[in-house]
Amino acid sequence: MLTLSDIREARSAIADRIHRTPLLSSAALGARTGLTCFIKAESLQKTGAFKVRGALNKVRRLTAEEKARGLVTVSAGNHAQGVAYAAAAAGAACTVVMPEGASRSKVAASEGYGARVVLHGTVTDAFARCEELRREHGYTFVHPFDDPDIMAGQGTIGLEIVEDLPDVDAVIAPVGGGGLLSGTAAALKAVRPEVRIFGVEPTGAAGLHAALRAGGVVRLERIDTVADGLTAPQTGEHVLEHVRALVDDVVLVEDAEIIEALRFLLERTKLMVEPAGAAAVAALLAGKIRLPSGARVVAIASGGNVDLARLRELLPG
Amino acid sequence: MLTLSDIREARSAIADRIHRTPLLSSAALGARTGLTCFIKAESLQKTGAFKVRGALNKVRRLTAEEKARGLVTVSAGNHAQGVAYAAAAAGAACTVVMPEGASRSKVAASEGYGARVVLHGTVTDAFARCEELRREHGYTFVHPFDDPDIMAGQGTIGLEIVEDLPDVDAVIAPVGGGGLLSGTAAALKAVRPEVRIFGVEPTGAAGLHAALRAGGVVRLERIDTVADGLTAPQTGEHVLEHVRALVDDVVLVEDAEIIEALRFLLERTKLMVEPAGAAAVAALLAGKIRLPSGARVVAIASGGNVDLARLRELLPG
Repeated sequence: MLTLSDIREARSAIADRIHRTPLLSSAALGARTGLTCFIKAESLQKTGAFKVRGALNKVRRLTAEEKARGLVTVSAGNHAQGVAYAAAAAGAACTVVMPEGASRSKVAASEGYGARVVLHGTVTDAFARCEELRREHGYTFVHPFDDPDIMAGQGTIGLEIVEDLPDVDAVIAPVGGGGLLSGTAAALKAVRPEVRIFGVEPTGAAGLHAALRAGGVVRLERIDTVADGLTAPQTGEHVLEHVRALVDDVVLVEDAEIIEALRFLLERTKLMVEPAGAAAVAALLAGKIRLPSGARVVAIASGGNVDLARLRELLPG
Repeated sequence: MLTLSDIREARSAIADRIHRTPLLSSAALGARTGLTCFIKAESLQKTGAFKVRGALNKVRRLTAEEKARGLVTVSAGNHAQGVAYAAAAAGAACTVVMPEGASRSKVAASEGYGARVVLHGTVTDAFARCEELRREHGYTFVHPFDDPDIMAGQGTIGLEIVEDLPDVDAVIAPVGGGGLLSGTAAALKAVRPEVRIFGVEPTGAAGLHAALRAGGVVRLERIDTVADGLTAPQTGEHVLEHVRALVDDVVLVEDAEIIEALRFLLERTKLMVEPAGAAAVAALLAGKIRLPSGARVVAIASGGNVDLARLRELLPG
């Protein structure tokens, strides 16, 4: 299990290379929920999403030999950008495999950071292609979530939250593979054991929910959600172990609830988020999180990488 | 002239009722300009714009009798929301006169804070109607910019900037009537005399630029800009005196430059701003601000109140 010192060490190592994102109080969200609401705006993070935290922490822990072999990863986009950014900073070559439907802006940004992008099939196909490339070329694989170094990097968000809001009652994190949720839970429960931690998955990509019910990692047959950032085909063993021990509940949201939350964040809090970044707020707005009235709750807005063209499709008329 | 102690006193009085907005560094803006760029995100302020700072400071300074008479003001929208918010908090009735073309969301938000909204003609007509209402009903007038209490409230932004970035080299503020620019300049030049201060006006509403050239306040014959938040028909005497003494330059931007900056802020920094809120960044992107390479410059993103429908019109295709 991740320790607090793992996460503190990650923080010392990456703090100078990331933004310490603001924790924004939202009266508008409070009025809708009866809670005291805050948004941790990781949409304002370097590369537009929290993923750069884990990527920087992972890459710094690689040996010179591992870096010299070149890195490979698989991602719907935000982890790709994070690894591309971290690899460039470390002078390592980097290949990222993304599904063919990946957001154009995420592809362009990954290439902008110097990565070679391979577009391949569905998310599940992309995971398989990544593994093939690793074997063929001897690349060093950077897992998008199920790796203690990645999880420790994402967990630095938890340290920032509790510094800014020492009496936080609950934190809600969106779940793709579960690296953000498990890392953040490890940090927060170590510093403030009474805090409640919730994960949020889209109904169409609920791999962690399925794993918790099945008692082990489950590969999803089909992935169908508007939140391209939350489309991991399955969770992982490290994640699952942490979630079982540390997370209070994993709730589900519909795509329509995610889109409503995205609109709310844009109109009322003036934050541009991608669908994945709206999922935690969606759970609050849709009443999926049960907390005592007035409780101090933080929703993590995990990313902001959405094309304007896509935004227009999501929010017509 | 405003003193530092006026602005510090304003800050003590209003600090608990506003957000201390984040100062966000922007590598993307730095790459485009060769400067070290920061954005003061007043779009994330309560009511969605900086105007609430001045309004709270003004309303707290009114006597019980002045408040009992009810307040009246005139605004394209953000000052209306600020005064409506401050009046509601003080238990004072409030009437706001807005031009007929005012943003629907700004009208709705002002009404949401409990103000009576009167829509009337152009911006210039609205100023005249506000004066009529004041005389007819004996209301207490809250000027949108040319009032030392308003200017001191807006100046609190300057104190926050220099706290977060003690070695700031330059600050750029958008100009409607000039309250933000003059208040911020007063704060910054008092604390750090070497800082350079720039104002930015749209070419189609350049009342301060005209006043500086003419040597006195000039009423604009015609106002035509995409930035509804910058449409004051003229600057004021208090503002002009402060700008002459404290501001290094007032530059002009075209509407197309404002729209490009709005798109840049949304796509690259994930901030939803209104056209007025993009003007300072527009001046940077369009090369209107001359500073030594690497200089630490802060662009104030003054507000984020734009309808999604309007956003769609501004950023087609």
